Amino acid sequence: MSGFSFTLNATDGRARSGVIDTPRGQIRTPAFMPVGTAATVKAMLPESVAATGADILLGNTYHLMLRPGAERIAKLGGLHKFMNWDKPILTDSGGFQVMSLAELRKLTEDGVTFSSHVDGSRHFLSPETSMEIQRLLGSDIVMAFDECPALPATEERQAEAMRLSMRWAQRSRDAFGDRPGHALFGIMQGGVLRHLREESADALRGIGFDGYAIGGLAVGEGQEAMFGVLDYAPDLLPADRPRYLMGVGKPDDIVGAVQRGVDMMDCVLPSRSGRTGQAWTRRGQVNIKNARHADDPRPLDENCTCPACRGYSRAYLHHVFRAGEMISGMLLTWHNLHYYQELMAGLRGAIAGGQLDEFVADFHAERAKGDIPTR
Amino acid sequence: MSGFSFTLNATDGRARSGVIDTPRGQIRTPAFMPVGTAATVKAMLPESVAATGADILLGNTYHLMLRPGAERIAKLGGLHKFMNWDKPILTDSGGFQVMSLAELRKLTEDGVTFSSHVDGSRHFLSPETSMEIQRLLGSDIVMAFDECPALPATEERQAEAMRLSMRWAQRSRDAFGDRPGHALFGIMQGGVLRHLREESADALRGIGFDGYAIGGLAVGEGQEAMFGVLDYAPDLLPADRPRYLMGVGKPDDIVGAVQRGVDMMDCVLPSRSGRTGQAWTRRGQVNIKNARHADDPRPLDENCTCPACRGYSRAYLHHVFRAGEMISGMLLTWHNLHYYQELMAGLRGAIAGGQLDEFVADFHAERAKGDIPTR
Repeated sequence: MSGFSFTLNATDGRARSGVIDTPRGQIRTPAFMPVGTAATVKAMLPESVAATGADILLGNTYHLMLRPGAERIAKLGGLHKFMNWDKPILTDSGGFQVMSLAELRKLTEDGVTFSSHVDGSRHFLSPETSMEIQRLLGSDIVMAFDECPALPATEERQAEAMRLSMRWAQRSRDAFGDRPGHALFGIMQGGVLRHLREESADALRGIGFDGYAIGGLAVGEGQEAMFGVLDYAPDLLPADRPRYLMGVGKPDDIVGAVQRGVDMMDCVLPSRSGRTGQAWTRRGQVNIKNARHADDPRPLDENCTCPACRGYSRAYLHHVFRAGEMISGMLLTWHNLHYYQELMAGLRGAIAGGQLDEFVADFHAERAKGDIPTR
Repeated sequence: MSGFSFTLNATDGRARSGVIDTPRGQIRTPAFMPVGTAATVKAMLPESVAATGADILLGNTYHLMLRPGAERIAKLGGLHKFMNWDKPILTDSGGFQVMSLAELRKLTEDGVTFSSHVDGSRHFLSPETSMEIQRLLGSDIVMAFDECPALPATEERQAEAMRLSMRWAQRSRDAFGDRPGHALFGIMQGGVLRHLREESADALRGIGFDGYAIGGLAVGEGQEAMFGVLDYAPDLLPADRPRYLMGVGKPDDIVGAVQRGVDMMDCVLPSRSGRTGQAWTRRGQVNIKNARHADDPRPLDENCTCPACRGYSRAYLHHVFRAGEMISGMLLTWHNLHYYQELMAGLRGAIAGGQLDEFVADFHAERAKGDIPTR
């Protein structure tokens, strides 16, 4: 793990704050990773993503292998150079997305054969090919190839999928080999069933990874069930390695996950919301499409320092959304990513200062007020 | 005209370079004005538009009166504040666009009644209402309300339209009144018919304006016919006032217009092209959709300093266009506007240095090379 390390600096209850060091820079944890699916965080320039405070972003192996192709990106100097982002990148393994997006899937012990949703071409993903693709992309944090079964699923089906994922985790570890400065994370599965989670954690610890993800959550089980798993799952993983909760989430999901010992998260929500006229603020969600904003000279959040809040009224944001202008998605995405990163900075500071309970109480109190009333 | 003035600093042949002073800042001429139709230059943040070197942008009265409405913008502090652009803004009068975009138009001596293309609501535009709307928007350079007949049109129809526009020009002048720091420009009409252009110029000079536009060109007559008019039309207008050629154009149109004494231009081309995968470079037009760019590690133009050329390969620009990503329009629009402003800076420098002929010869020689060959 030369060149890649995790330092825990503070804890507050089960919550942790620290730093992941990589050759491409530090990742302050708890960290939120914006999603740059197809080699772009949608509606953002990479320097703007960095300006929001993001230390790392996530790329999607499934999308990139299909278009423009991993070999092509490798020939062009790797994903960082391709997309003009020199900080760390985590890539998922393609396992989740091939099961949710690809067509004509055929799953065997060996891997998954599928048709591209882009052009129908046939492809094969396995632990070995996923490791190779993520190597070609130049990913800093590589995810083991796993299977995440669609819900609802029987306990038997969930156990099967988890055990297959654990065999694939071993194959991922073997195929990844030793790559100084690059990390491989294993992914715990098992749905909301504690004994499966325990079995999965045991298997992963036996193999040994640079970090550990909690997969198979945020797939429709609801916040209560998710927090139920997070009440015990992070503690099943080694305390000296980063713990990454995949695909989470809304701001209150993030706060609850951090309280339960999660160090890293990713989600398309802030960027996707930004393109559909939804803003996230300290006082909850704002639907900028709503006619009540049409004459409002106030910013989304008077205390926010993002470009959307410093430069524009709600009336303007309402207008450009209604007019279908690209600046709508550009500004709201920037605001949302800024808000998310500010939340993470607040959480890190609160953990470092031993004041997480107060921070979380304030967070919920502000949200409970709801959006500012129309003036 | 207090607070608004035009200073001619240099001439080279018929070409001129100078500065328009306004309370909101200087406009270096010859100037290219990006178009911000609906209170945004599409796909750009205003600070990025300024970073390309633009001193002024254009807003469309027709679009803004319909959505979000001029009264609303006035209540919110005017168009500059609304769209977060503190440099000068020129607004067109709505005359051209009401004839090309609105539905159920009815033209009388008084003005034009029409239905909104947005929601079908009925509206009325006249010299008086256009002046009032442009005042509400807070425009720095206001355009007289005119009629630009659709081509082809008989000479009689063209003469009628021009004479109506001249009566409207007088009414625009009367309605505009005296507004220190704000300028009113008259618009010459007459199509490609010299005697109509002369009659129109005489009428406008008789009324007296702060600047003079050449309207009714770049509407399908072709570059040769347009240059034919520009061979004499600018000289029909007062030499001590800015001359604005409306709706022009491609880079070679701009160069030819500047050679013929034009000081200001506007066009949607660089921004619209940017959203459809077309880039403008010193070596002509590049269609980034073309498969030959898919593996090309080179920027659009190795000598260009815009963010698209400094940060990204043609392969990346090709990929994000094909993937339908917003960053495609954002980067290509930025590049195109940067290229246009660089061209204007080059023209201004060449005129100031008495080297316009050499500059224009180089411009055409570079273009004649065509785009760099695939490697």
